[in-house]
Amino acid sequence: MSDHIVKSYDRDLETLGRRIAEMGGIAEKMLAEAMDALAAFDVTLAQRVVVADARLDALQRDIEESAILTIARRQPLAIDLRECIAAIRISGDLERVGDLAKNIAKRTVKIAGEARLPRAIIGLKSMHDVAALQLKDALDAYAQRDVERARSVWINDAELDALEDSVFRDLLTFMMEDPRNISFCTHLLFCSKNLERIGDHTTNIAETVIYLVTGEPMPTDRPKTRSPDGGGAIPPAAPL
Amino acid sequence: MSDHIVKSYDRDLETLGRRIAEMGGIAEKMLAEAMDALAAFDVTLAQRVVVADARLDALQRDIEESAILTIARRQPLAIDLRECIAAIRISGDLERVGDLAKNIAKRTVKIAGEARLPRAIIGLKSMHDVAALQLKDALDAYAQRDVERARSVWINDAELDALEDSVFRDLLTFMMEDPRNISFCTHLLFCSKNLERIGDHTTNIAETVIYLVTGEPMPTDRPKTRSPDGGGAIPPAAPL
Repeated sequence: MSDHIVKSYDRDLETLGRRIAEMGGIAEKMLAEAMDALAAFDVTLAQRVVVADARLDALQRDIEESAILTIARRQPLAIDLRECIAAIRISGDLERVGDLAKNIAKRTVKIAGEARLPRAIIGLKSMHDVAALQLKDALDAYAQRDVERARSVWINDAELDALEDSVFRDLLTFMMEDPRNISFCTHLLFCSKNLERIGDHTTNIAETVIYLVTGEPMPTDRPKTRSPDGGGAIPPAAPL
Repeated sequence: MSDHIVKSYDRDLETLGRRIAEMGGIAEKMLAEAMDALAAFDVTLAQRVVVADARLDALQRDIEESAILTIARRQPLAIDLRECIAAIRISGDLERVGDLAKNIAKRTVKIAGEARLPRAIIGLKSMHDVAALQLKDALDAYAQRDVERARSVWINDAELDALEDSVFRDLLTFMMEDPRNISFCTHLLFCSKNLERIGDHTTNIAETVIYLVTGEPMPTDRPKTRSPDGGGAIPPAAPL
């Protein structure tokens, strides 16, 4: 391959990496703002989160398109092929993280008028804090090709599941204590499920990083084998 | 390109199509059995659905791997490239349909012991009937490259959303009527959300069929612009 082609190929991969980093930044911000909006019942902030999602969708389409065209044009092998596949997978997971954050924001708009039970939000904030830290670690692991960090993300997902378990029980208790809590708490139940699923997509990203660096898929058994309400983990990345 | 290569390439695409059809059949069966298990609180059947999911995951990995290798080896253009991309996308959506059916089955195992409120299941059955028909139509549209059929699936998704709206209100009413219904109905709320999301993935498949045949993405505005509980639609297929 000529130097010219090699350089333009490196540029393709660099561009993919930069766009993933941009998506990661947007997804992190959406998650943080969605939680802030929920905690303060801030409808204006929630609406800003909903609007931000369009940029994430557009970036995902760009990344998927560029990665597939790179595969078709350059016929990459081994690590280079994995770079393209990883970009497609990670952009898909980040797009879903944004979607789930948007979903929390939409619920905030819906329930802001019937705000009650501030203590019900506390458990969700704990879930958010873990989810946000995990997402940051997964994105750093990708940026630095750091397998050990990716592995720790993979292992720590169990903590988020345990928190969801506890939030689920608390919300059910609030509903049983007072029927006026039912509608409000139902929305919070879905928010907690969304946070748990953000954790699943973050774990997917960690698995993709491990696959990218090592070429090996993770074992199919995740640390999490159950979810408090019967929700299943998103299956791990394919062993390509 | 020599005849030999062209034939082996056609074989690649044929194999992809056959595996998608197999995945479609498994996903349809899982959905039907998950609903039967829930309606009859049949734990044995529910456990069978949970086990069936592994085959779907394996098929998705196979399809993704084959499609990407085909892109890298054959450098297909236009319709042939779209065939590969469509296979990756549709297998991803079918894998998620299976996952959501498995999730319903897992909840069935969990709530079978506290079975109550048969009338609460009726709305879910209506949702299932629409979702199953939509999935069948989307798979037929793919098998026959039938754009009109795909378009009707895309439009009819609004019906499933309206049904979820009604199920959501009914379940909330049951919970308010009697606190002993709360835990049970909470699980049904998640089941109804799963059925609605199966509809979203089915709509994705329809969009992919339209893109496959016409090369054009669908407009980003779906017929559904809202969800009764703030849930957002999964974004449409990327315009590759």
